[in-house]
Amino acid sequence: MTEIVVLAGGVGGARYLRGVREAAARRWPDGSGGSTAHITAIVNTGDDAWLAGLRITPDLDSVMYTLAGVSDEQRGWGRVGETERVSAELREYGVGWPWFTLGDLDLGTHIARTSWLREGEPLSAVVKRLQSRWPIGIDLVPMTDAEVETNVQVADETSGSRLMHFQEWWTRHRAGIPAERFVQVGIEGAVPAPGVLDAIEAADALLIAPSNPVVSIGTILAVPGLRDALRSAPARVVGVSPIIAGAAVRGMADACLQAIHVETSATGVALHYGARDGSADGLLDGWLVDTADADAVGQLDAAGITTISRPLFMTDLDASAEIAGAALDLALART
Amino acid sequence: MTEIVVLAGGVGGARYLRGVREAAARRWPDGSGGSTAHITAIVNTGDDAWLAGLRITPDLDSVMYTLAGVSDEQRGWGRVGETERVSAELREYGVGWPWFTLGDLDLGTHIARTSWLREGEPLSAVVKRLQSRWPIGIDLVPMTDAEVETNVQVADETSGSRLMHFQEWWTRHRAGIPAERFVQVGIEGAVPAPGVLDAIEAADALLIAPSNPVVSIGTILAVPGLRDALRSAPARVVGVSPIIAGAAVRGMADACLQAIHVETSATGVALHYGARDGSADGLLDGWLVDTADADAVGQLDAAGITTISRPLFMTDLDASAEIAGAALDLALART
Repeated sequence: MTEIVVLAGGVGGARYLRGVREAAARRWPDGSGGSTAHITAIVNTGDDAWLAGLRITPDLDSVMYTLAGVSDEQRGWGRVGETERVSAELREYGVGWPWFTLGDLDLGTHIARTSWLREGEPLSAVVKRLQSRWPIGIDLVPMTDAEVETNVQVADETSGSRLMHFQEWWTRHRAGIPAERFVQVGIEGAVPAPGVLDAIEAADALLIAPSNPVVSIGTILAVPGLRDALRSAPARVVGVSPIIAGAAVRGMADACLQAIHVETSATGVALHYGARDGSADGLLDGWLVDTADADAVGQLDAAGITTISRPLFMTDLDASAEIAGAALDLALART
Repeated sequence: MTEIVVLAGGVGGARYLRGVREAAARRWPDGSGGSTAHITAIVNTGDDAWLAGLRITPDLDSVMYTLAGVSDEQRGWGRVGETERVSAELREYGVGWPWFTLGDLDLGTHIARTSWLREGEPLSAVVKRLQSRWPIGIDLVPMTDAEVETNVQVADETSGSRLMHFQEWWTRHRAGIPAERFVQVGIEGAVPAPGVLDAIEAADALLIAPSNPVVSIGTILAVPGLRDALRSAPARVVGVSPIIAGAAVRGMADACLQAIHVETSATGVALHYGARDGSADGLLDGWLVDTADADAVGQLDAAGITTISRPLFMTDLDASAEIAGAALDLALART
């Protein structure tokens, strides 16, 4: 059985995972619409937050809902057919963040998750229980069971600088306040969730989704032991550029890249991840850039990252599956 | 300022409190529709439960919603215009009690309450914050800040007998399983919530709502120190019979009375509460029975409980206000 492991953030990661699932079903059909390959998604939990006494895991939910076919594709987040009656009540009581809406359907997931966490179950077990409701065909695993929360350091007139939760910076301020740096609070004591290191070790292909390289993939890679596991794994590591022609395909990755002084370009992100055989902590064996960035191929090849240029806009399932298929080809090709 | 204290359970207590508020506004008008009297309701919390990680307080909510004018009068519980989208999700995840529906609007209250409790606030402070949203004109105080949960002991084929949460017995089984006894788990260590004893001591009138005498009023009276405070308070204690012509006006009080071997009658309940000057732990100075139970007057008067018969069906606000007014008259009359 082919083992595929994907590192993924939220919406971009979710669409890519849908493509990976479809690509696998085409390459290794099981005769009933699915695939004989086994796919594990290691998902960022740095965007997680406690809100109104509930544990919110935006990236895990985006991935689960998208793969289950119940996500709101037009809005880009949450459940389709969502309503906000509970949130309106919470606002009346002054509870929660007024700029962060909890949909009613979504709250069902938050309440279930929180009740299981409060009973002492680790997040990875909770995610298993939640996804058992949906036949998504991919094992979702949080990067860690520890509570790691990404904070953003921003300039502050009185105190020089201060930290705010990533959600406040991202959702409330739309990443409009210049970030000085990102701090993954709690990451030092975190360990990869059960199954993460085993999956990486056993993988035939290690894929990096075109998610935010700083606050999604960067946070996953910051879990102690995880980057080393990828570097020493037998499978090849292949990423897809989240940057096309110098701009983030979705989200506000440029604001994040700026903060860590990485150029917003397909090349900049690839060199930031690094060549596995080149730099001290490099990861990448392969990299996909859009045809608009074809001129990056030579430089990255020379840097030790086998780079292919092809259309990278995930306009529909077919496009996503073809992109994922190209990444799988590159990962599985033994030269 | 006239100080009125009312002991109350859920729906019946809520309607009675609405009557007390109206009666006070008629007797002591403040010129703007309200009253110059100050009303404190000491509310049963024995029906409370942890459900799906949320703290549910049915009686406090029934009272708050009813007094706020947002309760569902037709259904008899919850908020008017309620929906159940979140509950449907929770059922899909297998979370909560499938026989206990959490409405979406109601969940706003539960989430707010739980988040404040989790932050360490006592229930009495939480209730203050919740009711500050609604201009209800009555101070709601839980009987205690401690977690006291009424359990019902029922016969069990295998183990002889077992305990179930009151909500399971009441809501799931509609009180259809014979109760052997009621156990207020946690009551020994409970103390009256802040303000309860002071309010009783300072009261000009102490009223007992026509709530369930066993699991609502009985539970309040079981909080250590509360019954003694009523017995030694300077004000007169006047109750309204929840039983009319041998039947409970609402709820399933007969099933509760049976379990504690009290006759389901206006007389039975009055003698169960006891005459303040008569029995060792009696409470009542006065008692209101329905005209259908007029023949109880002589016996109860003889037992030391000044009893009046009058119509007791709280068919509308006016009827409730007149009943409450009669109770106030009896409490405030100094002979």
